[in-house]
Amino acid sequence: MTKGRMEAFSDGVLAIIITIMVLELNIPQEPGVSGLLPLWPILVSYILSFVFLGIYWSNHHHLLQAVQRVNGRVLWANLHLLFWLTLIPFVTGWMGENHFAPWPVAMYGVVLLFAAIAYFILTKALIRLHGKDSVLANAVGRDFKGKISVVIYCAAIPLAFVHSWSAGALYVLVAIMWLMPDRRIEKTLKSGE
Amino acid sequence: MTKGRMEAFSDGVLAIIITIMVLELNIPQEPGVSGLLPLWPILVSYILSFVFLGIYWSNHHHLLQAVQRVNGRVLWANLHLLFWLTLIPFVTGWMGENHFAPWPVAMYGVVLLFAAIAYFILTKALIRLHGKDSVLANAVGRDFKGKISVVIYCAAIPLAFVHSWSAGALYVLVAIMWLMPDRRIEKTLKSGE
Amino acid sequence: MTKGRMEAFSDGVLAIIITIMVLELNIPQEPGVSGLLPLWPILVSYILSFVFLGIYWSNHHHLLQAVQRVNGRVLWANLHLLFWLTLIPFVTGWMGENHFAPWPVAMYGVVLLFAAIAYFILTKALIRLHGKDSVLANAVGRDFKGKISVVIYCAAIPLAFVHSWSAGALYVLVAIMWLMPDRRIEKTLKSGE
Amino acid sequence: MTKGRMEAFSDGVLAIIITIMVLELNIPQEPGVSGLLPLWPILVSYILSFVFLGIYWSNHHHLLQAVQRVNGRVLWANLHLLFWLTLIPFVTGWMGENHFAPWPVAMYGVVLLFAAIAYFILTKALIRLHGKDSVLANAVGRDFKGKISVVIYCAAIPLAFVHSWSAGALYVLVAIMWLMPDRRIEKTLKSGE
Repeated sequence: MTKGRMEAFSDGVLAIIITIMVLELNIPQEPGVSGLLPLWPILVSYILSFVFLGIYWSNHHHLLQAVQRVNGRVLWANLHLLFWLTLIPFVTGWMGENHFAPWPVAMYGVVLLFAAIAYFILTKALIRLHGKDSVLANAVGRDFKGKISVVIYCAAIPLAFVHSWSAGALYVLVAIMWLMPDRRIEKTLKSGE
Repeated sequence: MTKGRMEAFSDGVLAIIITIMVLELNIPQEPGVSGLLPLWPILVSYILSFVFLGIYWSNHHHLLQAVQRVNGRVLWANLHLLFWLTLIPFVTGWMGENHFAPWPVAMYGVVLLFAAIAYFILTKALIRLHGKDSVLANAVGRDFKGKISVVIYCAAIPLAFVHSWSAGALYVLVAIMWLMPDRRIEKTLKSGE
Repeated sequence: MTKGRMEAFSDGVLAIIITIMVLELNIPQEPGVSGLLPLWPILVSYILSFVFLGIYWSNHHHLLQAVQRVNGRVLWANLHLLFWLTLIPFVTGWMGENHFAPWPVAMYGVVLLFAAIAYFILTKALIRLHGKDSVLANAVGRDFKGKISVVIYCAAIPLAFVHSWSAGALYVLVAIMWLMPDRRIEKTLKSGE
Repeated sequence: MTKGRMEAFSDGVLAIIITIMVLELNIPQEPGVSGLLPLWPILVSYILSFVFLGIYWSNHHHLLQAVQRVNGRVLWANLHLLFWLTLIPFVTGWMGENHFAPWPVAMYGVVLLFAAIAYFILTKALIRLHGKDSVLANAVGRDFKGKISVVIYCAAIPLAFVHSWSAGALYVLVAIMWLMPDRRIEKTLKSGE
């Protein structure tokens, strides 16, 4: 089974998620800057989620580059990942509209945590299909960044109830860590050629 | 006529349907968990519809894998299927917001029933184009799962007025039955090579 | 310049237009059938617009099949067509919510009329690029259906103010006329091979 | 790394942005023309933004035609461009609903300015990857239109507070300037063959 349609479908869902979030930026009634200023927490949470979805799209792109084929298990692992990502606009809007209150910030972390786990499952399903000695398996390696992200999310979720802005700062930390594209796969692919 | 654009258009529509449903999860005004709890029936109906749309996408993907070309009749059979699927966000939201009340649950079943019939028509249109001895015709075979789904929907729709949760349980049953990807086509394609 | 991205972009816009229309079907507050019945004019106008957009997608698909390349002029002729099509959800919702009142029905016809003209311009731009003796030019031929559609729209728009349901019936007539896929292009392509 | 998925994802985001803007055209409650007339500033701002997004899509299309491959830096330069473009529906709606009041018109210019800068960065990232002697570098050349656009935006933003309609006229001027597709790339590509 070819990977083309899975890529196209994922691109579609990610493109829509990213664009739907901007609908949370409700257009102010008043024409002055006073209508714009109260939107800043929504804009901040939008930027954070835009970056996270950009990271997922970019990593998904790298991951699928290293892959030759997919099967039913991979299709569903991918849909499972997309499910958690579709919840991002909801938690983004909730967090932004409530000025980073504890519960919304914690739920934002929960969605990020399950998305990270879903990405991990997708990686495992692809490695299982291509073999432990495949280019993909070497490229993914020990997946240090994936594991540390899960640890940080697990710390940030309870922290949100103590000091929600610190939890938010941890999410930003994870985003910065991932902003560098996954050179492991690029390198391994090159050395594989 | 090549199948590429029909696949791309279907992927686009399915990706948007899946993502639009999440807009029904209205962001609560209050920042606490008390704002989140009333959303559970909407979330449950969202998950159910997400799985159904995932099943349709996955089966559509398998079906089109076994196909070489399309014609005008197939394009319209596909649009007819997409029409019924576009109604899923509406019935999903109605069912979720009314806590699985009889009418919404019954209408949800009606939409699923017509989508199943539309999928059946699409399959027939493709078999008609490729011939009764084609790989596709062998792969689809007697279409046991498709027929039993229709029977279950026909039972669930009246049942919704007697005991709506049992009708909902029947929908879940159909989803579980389909969650396994359609190995018939995979197998027949392999043996055909 | 290859036609692939113009097809992909058009597919995306059409898929979103078709799916956005369904958002006009506002979910009723009440769980009974009494909440559903008032939606019938919105559903009827949705079905009509779904069919028109399906016709445009199908014809666009056929048209681009007969085409080898595009240029800047074609890209903009295509964007111009998409502009008029993006107004369809607006006039569809207005017409449905006002039970096919004169002004909404007339404006629906105006949007259809300009979309038909835009499709005609796109066809001309493609013929200009491929030459008057091209397969495409032969396939399009005298474009009888396109011309008669424009005539019917021009009659339906004033008629909407006299008897809006008759104008609506004329739109249905155009849709039925187009529902048969454009066999001219299929035939000419075949005989060209 | 191939450019296919970056094109597909950008097409998806642009298609959704263009279509989401039309949701700002709220359907009037009343069935008469009196409900339609107050919408004209929203329609005007929609048309302007549709043209700008069409220009970005068309230029993006030309740019990627001249490109053989992408890397992580290019993916993120592209996401950065898409970020600014996703803000266009917001400023379009704000400007239209407030009848081209100073602040919304100025913010519209700010978003256009940052999108122009992001496009410039994307071009540079692509030239860096393909080399200063590449077909792409020659095709882009001194980028006169890009530079003059930035100058006009920088003039229009303060002008919006003095005379907002003049600022709007400057945006229209930029759009007209760009409406001609980028023949530089087409020419250089041809001469390169």
